[in-house]
Amino acid sequence: MGHPLHLTVPDGLPFIDFEREFDHPVADVFRAHADPALLREWLGPRGTHVEVDSYDFRTGGAYEYHHTGPDGVSYAFRGVLHTVRENELVVQTFEFGGYPDVVELEYLRFEDLGDGRCRLVGHTVHASQEARDGMAGSGMESGLSDGYERLEELLAARVR
Amino acid sequence: MGHPLHLTVPDGLPFIDFEREFDHPVADVFRAHADPALLREWLGPRGTHVEVDSYDFRTGGAYEYHHTGPDGVSYAFRGVLHTVRENELVVQTFEFGGYPDVVELEYLRFEDLGDGRCRLVGHTVHASQEARDGMAGSGMESGLSDGYERLEELLAARVR
Repeated sequence: MGHPLHLTVPDGLPFIDFEREFDHPVADVFRAHADPALLREWLGPRGTHVEVDSYDFRTGGAYEYHHTGPDGVSYAFRGVLHTVRENELVVQTFEFGGYPDVVELEYLRFEDLGDGRCRLVGHTVHASQEARDGMAGSGMESGLSDGYERLEELLAARVR
Repeated sequence: MGHPLHLTVPDGLPFIDFEREFDHPVADVFRAHADPALLREWLGPRGTHVEVDSYDFRTGGAYEYHHTGPDGVSYAFRGVLHTVRENELVVQTFEFGGYPDVVELEYLRFEDLGDGRCRLVGHTVHASQEARDGMAGSGMESGLSDGYERLEELLAARVR
């Protein structure tokens, strides 16, 4: 099982782009983002524990969660949801508490590929080239890759 | 009266930066952004009429307003407020209804210069170079310049 994560860090522009396919219906992948009880089961690198502190997943809503790693250290994240369109599009902000006021804008498109398959297409937009480079060097790629593998495992387990 | 707006559109990066000083206390300039009854008096180009449809000016809040020009045509705008720190910082999203899903991130810093003066420092972050170029070419500079002159007039009138 498992599709790879494709992540690109373009030269000279403060963006990160990624794509990931799933052999699961777009509605299931969207719901795993929308429902905090599911989100906490897959978000982030393996070995981290996620607590969702608040989650109002709608246009105009907001969220807060924190990861705790195997070493017991916690990392807090929060943002606001500019657009939530079911099974289609999320546009949200994202801030890591360790870098206060370094805010990014994230686009996440959910594409229905038919036959019970879908593709997630992400585009992150950073307020400076330095902020983008910091995010790209932070383990984002392995965190996303792990997270989407865990998401796939979660959906596969629910189908069985 | 009147300080100029300094606006820069950097080559090759999807940002717009601007600065504007005011001979008014930072708390007054901040309040003119925070209070929709004041905001509608100055926001946007001269000759436009602003209606604030919703305005929840706090971290995690959201806003909607629309401009109506002298020709009777209305333009709707909305966004969410990632950070609102009184007299200091606003980080928010911004979307013009005419270009749905073209969302930008805006930083607005309020700097106290002492002696009842302050400086606004803005930094807008766009999801593509094309979106940035579109915004820069949309009359944003004259709209901001007009708006800040109107803001200055509003504050001067209230002092008298």
